[in-house]
Amino acid sequence: MENNDNRQHCFAGSEKIYVPGKMFDIKVGMRKINLTDTVTVLENGEKVVSKNRPVVTYDTGGVFTDEKCRYDINEGIPRIREEWIARRGDTEQLSGISSEYGRKRLCDKSLDPIRFKKPYLPRKAKPGREITQMYYARQGIITAEMEYVAIRENMQNEELGIESHITPEFVRDEIAAGRAIIPANINHPESEPMIIGSAFLVKLNTNIGNSALSSGIAEEVDKAVWSCRWGGDTLMDLSTGDNIHETREWIIRNCPVPMGTVPIYQALEKVNGKIEDLSWEIYRDTLIEQCEQGVDYFTVHAGVLKEHAELSKKRLTGIVSRGGSIMTSWCIKHDEESFLYTHFDEICDIVKAYDVALSLGDGMRPGSIHDANDEAQFLELKVLGELTERAWKKNVQVIIEGPGHIPMHKIRENMERQITDCHGAPFYTLGPLTTDIAPGYDHITSAIGAAMIAWYGTAMICYVTPKEHLGLPNREDVRNGVIAYKIAAHAADIAKGHPGAQVRDDALSKARFEFRWRDQFNLSLDPERAMEYYKEGNKNDGDYCTMCGPNFCAMRLSQGLRNNNDKKEA
Amino acid sequence: MENNDNRQHCFAGSEKIYVPGKMFDIKVGMRKINLTDTVTVLENGEKVVSKNRPVVTYDTGGVFTDEKCRYDINEGIPRIREEWIARRGDTEQLSGISSEYGRKRLCDKSLDPIRFKKPYLPRKAKPGREITQMYYARQGIITAEMEYVAIRENMQNEELGIESHITPEFVRDEIAAGRAIIPANINHPESEPMIIGSAFLVKLNTNIGNSALSSGIAEEVDKAVWSCRWGGDTLMDLSTGDNIHETREWIIRNCPVPMGTVPIYQALEKVNGKIEDLSWEIYRDTLIEQCEQGVDYFTVHAGVLKEHAELSKKRLTGIVSRGGSIMTSWCIKHDEESFLYTHFDEICDIVKAYDVALSLGDGMRPGSIHDANDEAQFLELKVLGELTERAWKKNVQVIIEGPGHIPMHKIRENMERQITDCHGAPFYTLGPLTTDIAPGYDHITSAIGAAMIAWYGTAMICYVTPKEHLGLPNREDVRNGVIAYKIAAHAADIAKGHPGAQVRDDALSKARFEFRWRDQFNLSLDPERAMEYYKEGNKNDGDYCTMCGPNFCAMRLSQGLRNNNDKKEA
Repeated sequence: MENNDNRQHCFAGSEKIYVPGKMFDIKVGMRKINLTDTVTVLENGEKVVSKNRPVVTYDTGGVFTDEKCRYDINEGIPRIREEWIARRGDTEQLSGISSEYGRKRLCDKSLDPIRFKKPYLPRKAKPGREITQMYYARQGIITAEMEYVAIRENMQNEELGIESHITPEFVRDEIAAGRAIIPANINHPESEPMIIGSAFLVKLNTNIGNSALSSGIAEEVDKAVWSCRWGGDTLMDLSTGDNIHETREWIIRNCPVPMGTVPIYQALEKVNGKIEDLSWEIYRDTLIEQCEQGVDYFTVHAGVLKEHAELSKKRLTGIVSRGGSIMTSWCIKHDEESFLYTHFDEICDIVKAYDVALSLGDGMRPGSIHDANDEAQFLELKVLGELTERAWKKNVQVIIEGPGHIPMHKIRENMERQITDCHGAPFYTLGPLTTDIAPGYDHITSAIGAAMIAWYGTAMICYVTPKEHLGLPNREDVRNGVIAYKIAAHAADIAKGHPGAQVRDDALSKARFEFRWRDQFNLSLDPERAMEYYKEGNKNDGDYCTMCGPNFCAMRLSQGLRNNNDKKEA
Repeated sequence: MENNDNRQHCFAGSEKIYVPGKMFDIKVGMRKINLTDTVTVLENGEKVVSKNRPVVTYDTGGVFTDEKCRYDINEGIPRIREEWIARRGDTEQLSGISSEYGRKRLCDKSLDPIRFKKPYLPRKAKPGREITQMYYARQGIITAEMEYVAIRENMQNEELGIESHITPEFVRDEIAAGRAIIPANINHPESEPMIIGSAFLVKLNTNIGNSALSSGIAEEVDKAVWSCRWGGDTLMDLSTGDNIHETREWIIRNCPVPMGTVPIYQALEKVNGKIEDLSWEIYRDTLIEQCEQGVDYFTVHAGVLKEHAELSKKRLTGIVSRGGSIMTSWCIKHDEESFLYTHFDEICDIVKAYDVALSLGDGMRPGSIHDANDEAQFLELKVLGELTERAWKKNVQVIIEGPGHIPMHKIRENMERQITDCHGAPFYTLGPLTTDIAPGYDHITSAIGAAMIAWYGTAMICYVTPKEHLGLPNREDVRNGVIAYKIAAHAADIAKGHPGAQVRDDALSKARFEFRWRDQFNLSLDPERAMEYYKEGNKNDGDYCTMCGPNFCAMRLSQGLRNNNDKKEA
């Protein structure tokens, strides 16, 4: 694996800026899009020039979108939070890896060629110490992470004089109340702090991962960088193939956003896919292994109970969550309650020592319009609410996973029940897909539902790519999925009235009206695609496009009217 | 231009069926998707086979999706309504073309090579007779067109025992009340009747057309067929280039769906793009020309008044409707009220003699999130309401055009005001786009808004392609735009509870759960895309896909559970 030139990831017309903290010695990376001047030619030939203020946007690309940096995936990216964590003095570096499986992999010389070259010793809470962001918040403490996200969420609001409710104190209070989380494992100091909560910008998660049938390490790291570049706020590694452990290490050491996993997948690999051989002990060891690697949140399907299996039989499409179907099978095969449920307090005790957040999985999410909002789904939601309270007792940060396939008129009920049943914990939904009949276009069927539920209050939406239901996404699919979800998230931010969210829309529309094409492209979510489409039909760079041609360009006519009027008034 | 083989347009696993009328001698074309059997293998190896009922869907492809037919675009497609119209005895065939422009083109020998070869003499209401569908409905008359759409909207509801409010009587009453229209120019008998109204299936319009910079006749006809094949319910020809008259003739004679135009575009061509030279006389002649060719509905920007120009100056993006900007310029240049407004009653008198419907254009639709729901927009809407009443007095069918760029939280207000201000006339919106920042993906930004506003009650949504704001759509763009809007329309049909809308979702999801891949593809909106994506990653045709691999396939696990349980119970 080679050194890479960041310029491939940077966007035209943009530069990386760093906004310093006021409380902490931190610098928050953002993207500044520089714009050209507006030049108006009046009827008498006179030229009026006015400046256009740069637009500052949220940037999930980390070091990869800083053209002044070079990176080397063998080295990993800068560990920006390492010092903040150490300085708090409530954690300690361990002398080695704690998990049995991790130690076994480490001793296996045959893995040397695929191992990340620069191992770090894991860190853990000192005995008796509490170290989660929720704990700090409840003590009234503002952490560097909290100030970081407050600055990040506001982008240029202060500069523009836009009033914002988002202060470090507000961030702290939302986390203390359980209404927001900062997923921030102390063993993933490379991650730039971000917040998930309904009072903040809507976030989007992307899934990467190989199945038994495809993909390799370099490709997975590349997918991770690629997804961050386009705007993925978090990343779930859902790999189920070989060398999960080593692949994950490569990704985490190069990942500027929080990473999530579903530990039951790896646990199942460890027993060669035989569900009946799964046990709490194997799962427990997997949790510790991944906590020490730096996974920031775990999807845990602890809400799927033995009694739910019967309910799923009434469905058209049964259980479509992988974790849900695995745990249901286990319960039936053993005729026992799920070990994720019976050992839930122990799970909390493990993860809290690293500040790993829990994403309570919806194993009973509906897989079809027919099954939406049914008994199985809502019964599980109540269990997730109970588990939320148990996690909060231990200061563990929690988010709740949601559906799935839901028709538009049933979306709001999902949001309302989740808030009530889960006591305001952030909602994190997959779509929802608003119809079943468009395989190949499920990024669209689901962007509709995602935009709506995010407007209603969902804090994070999990992207769906065009390949959903059909196969694994390639690079283009990831790009299309991320952009569809950036659209949904941004549309929701505007509808929710997030402070400053509309600044970019206004700047782009002004550029469009003034035929500043480059500015319009640079301000768009996918400048390269916009440019490509424009160039397909347009040879000119003038004041119209091929859509209407020169005589029928409404904006040209409308601008003409305005300029003449302006002149008359002057 | 050559004969064509329809098989290129037909979908795999589907056949065209024709449902006969009970009141009239009509046959309504639909698409029947045949499904394979469900085969369940129990643990003891026993096979249980059960039939899956075919799914009947709405089909906008006309003769093109009937594999038993061959077509010849030189001949045009069958004139199914010719007899129905003649039999009513209230219209007569004219001895020639009435418009000055039409006669001039006919005499121009240089146009012979590009002229449609088989001219038809136009038909018109007999003096003193009223012939619009609205007139008939108000007299309590049910026409063949009304029974046709009632059968069409119900698909297989009767067969499945699904209760439906949609009867020929209901259709008549909705049209009489102005809440629905059947765009059906007596000079476009090739068109299969369809209904636009909020109590019916949500319809989608596609735009085709060349600008001065591109495209030719064969390509335009091909685009029209292509858009119908994918599911476009109506088609607007927005051409602004050369030979509009001849191109239009070719399209109409081969077009199985209603066609709309914006006559002011052609009027402007006739004065070489000089807005000040536009006049009522030129416009009037254009209306007659197009009425006699068979255009089914006209977009008329009669709501743009002189006084509105001033309001548009407060906007970020001025006037973005072509028709709106043309008429505003005209008003200012002449310092006169718009001739579309002052001559509106005459417009109604002209179009009613052919049953051409009016689509009252929203010349003041917002072109950016910033300008959404502003004074200019809503003032114009009130004028459109006044014009609606004037048209209804003359039994002219009316729909109302709507925005544009609207953030999600401002969408519902658009629907509510439109219903109140325009007295329940059907709403026909362009999107709306829910954010400005995604050029290249505006089929998605707008599918979100379109799905929502259609759920709220919009009767027809006008598609937006990925090329919006950037250039003219090619074939792939048309396909992507239509599918995105089929998704939005169908999601809304489900949310509105349209009788039988969910049948296809349920059938597809059942096929998915049972790994009947071919059935899943055949039931999807774009079987070819779904198949292509599936084949990219899957060599097998088995009971899992590359997404999860065999060990992690939730549906496989879930199905296994069910089959075992079924056995135990048996």
